[in-house]
Amino acid sequence: MCQLLGMNCHLPTDISFSFSGFAKRGGQTDHHTDGFGIGFFEGRGLRLFLDDHPCAQSPVAELVRNYHIKSKNVISHIRKATQGRTSLENTHPFQRELWGGYWLFAHNGNLKSTFQPKTYYYQPVGNTDSERAFCYILDRLREQFPSKPSHVELFHALQPLCVEVQQYGMFNMILSDGEVMYAHASTLLHYIVREAPFGHAHLVDTDIEIDFSKVTTPDDRVAIITTLPLTDNETWHQFACNELAMFQDGKIILRHLPDNPTYLTIEEGLEIARKAGVCRE
Amino acid sequence: MCQLLGMNCHLPTDISFSFSGFAKRGGQTDHHTDGFGIGFFEGRGLRLFLDDHPCAQSPVAELVRNYHIKSKNVISHIRKATQGRTSLENTHPFQRELWGGYWLFAHNGNLKSTFQPKTYYYQPVGNTDSERAFCYILDRLREQFPSKPSHVELFHALQPLCVEVQQYGMFNMILSDGEVMYAHASTLLHYIVREAPFGHAHLVDTDIEIDFSKVTTPDDRVAIITTLPLTDNETWHQFACNELAMFQDGKIILRHLPDNPTYLTIEEGLEIARKAGVCRE
Repeated sequence: MCQLLGMNCHLPTDISFSFSGFAKRGGQTDHHTDGFGIGFFEGRGLRLFLDDHPCAQSPVAELVRNYHIKSKNVISHIRKATQGRTSLENTHPFQRELWGGYWLFAHNGNLKSTFQPKTYYYQPVGNTDSERAFCYILDRLREQFPSKPSHVELFHALQPLCVEVQQYGMFNMILSDGEVMYAHASTLLHYIVREAPFGHAHLVDTDIEIDFSKVTTPDDRVAIITTLPLTDNETWHQFACNELAMFQDGKIILRHLPDNPTYLTIEEGLEIARKAGVCRE
Repeated sequence: MCQLLGMNCHLPTDISFSFSGFAKRGGQTDHHTDGFGIGFFEGRGLRLFLDDHPCAQSPVAELVRNYHIKSKNVISHIRKATQGRTSLENTHPFQRELWGGYWLFAHNGNLKSTFQPKTYYYQPVGNTDSERAFCYILDRLREQFPSKPSHVELFHALQPLCVEVQQYGMFNMILSDGEVMYAHASTLLHYIVREAPFGHAHLVDTDIEIDFSKVTTPDDRVAIITTLPLTDNETWHQFACNELAMFQDGKIILRHLPDNPTYLTIEEGLEIARKAGVCRE
């Protein structure tokens, strides 16, 4: 199954710790061997590293682990190909410019091949369902708003678009304009907010522990969003099925919960992913 | 002065040799210490590395030198800031999607602040004259062609746009859609075509020599485009002032020369760049 990782922070933060565990899922502790990508917003700029080689062995991933880029918004994705060839143009996250700013998007799921929306402003470059969904969402937002609206307006415009897209299949996704981060869960998506007083964390995927109190200031606050929890000694929260949330400055600002929120167990979520063809194992 | 590097090839080629010399100009053999970028087309995909740190000391440049990415179209740029802050969003090359394909653009020059064209489809993210020019060109091409025309049609549409933009100042630029490479010279721009029988080449900026006959096949053909020649034992050709050329498969396919072509000496070109504020030395 493809896996998602997002980070939204109050202050520019180094994602190396979380990425170290996450990267192991690309060909070492899991079977996501079809490439990976990670994009860092830095001010209005965006630095996007893509590789169609397994993340665990990628020199690009090695650079990311060692370079310690600080960012307030990061999106990463490890790919297990379900639709589209394994190639660079099909590697998430995808990037476009809208209203004079960059947007970054990554998706975990599998949309039916009948999802072939017509778009005017944005066209997919590769042949994934994910890039089609990204182009469709940006197109519709641009149609509705000739210039950039508030984040709250965007949230309320995005919510029905997520409902629309997920009629075609599983739509776990992370989207960011470099200021806020939107996360939508169809099935499996978790998050954690780390803030003072900071404690210890230990990665699930590799035997690395960190004492956040030694590398943070009291003003730090960091939200991590990920398909499956990255640490085994912290409390992760699960998004409800069909929930949309907006993160800003490291915390949830807005959330849209279905009337009767449901939560899948990790096993149920993985089973659905497997049946939908998101896991080709 | 900012410096440009482009490579257009018949077969996917490793740019490491040329980049090794070029990268030295970013803070070591020259004063281009305001960041660099390099973009590689790979199939329909695009891998763009940007860094707002000096190229000569950048871990990103180190990765590029050591990773040996093979590509048929590469554009790189080393920046000496003249307009816009030194920041990631102002780092070339710039990337956009047009007609379902990625486009990459880098510029060397300085356009007057009165160059503030209105654009509909593409908006600059940073505040450089270069990104404004890129957005303007893509916008006008998109206006003229609802879907992608032939490269020849694009060449003829691009030529008057270059004339228009260079009324505002120096406009040496390289543009690619991953299939062909367009190069426009206002003042200083050189190229070389390397093909069988291949010989030795020695870099100007660092004492590295290569015997291309040992690392090529008879089918290889590589065009290198650069502000100033990269080697001291090969014959580089200079573009005429105000010339536009299109490269495909490692050779020039089309060129538009002014009626009375003129060529500046390197010293004259540098002097004009200095006066235009392209060199802040």
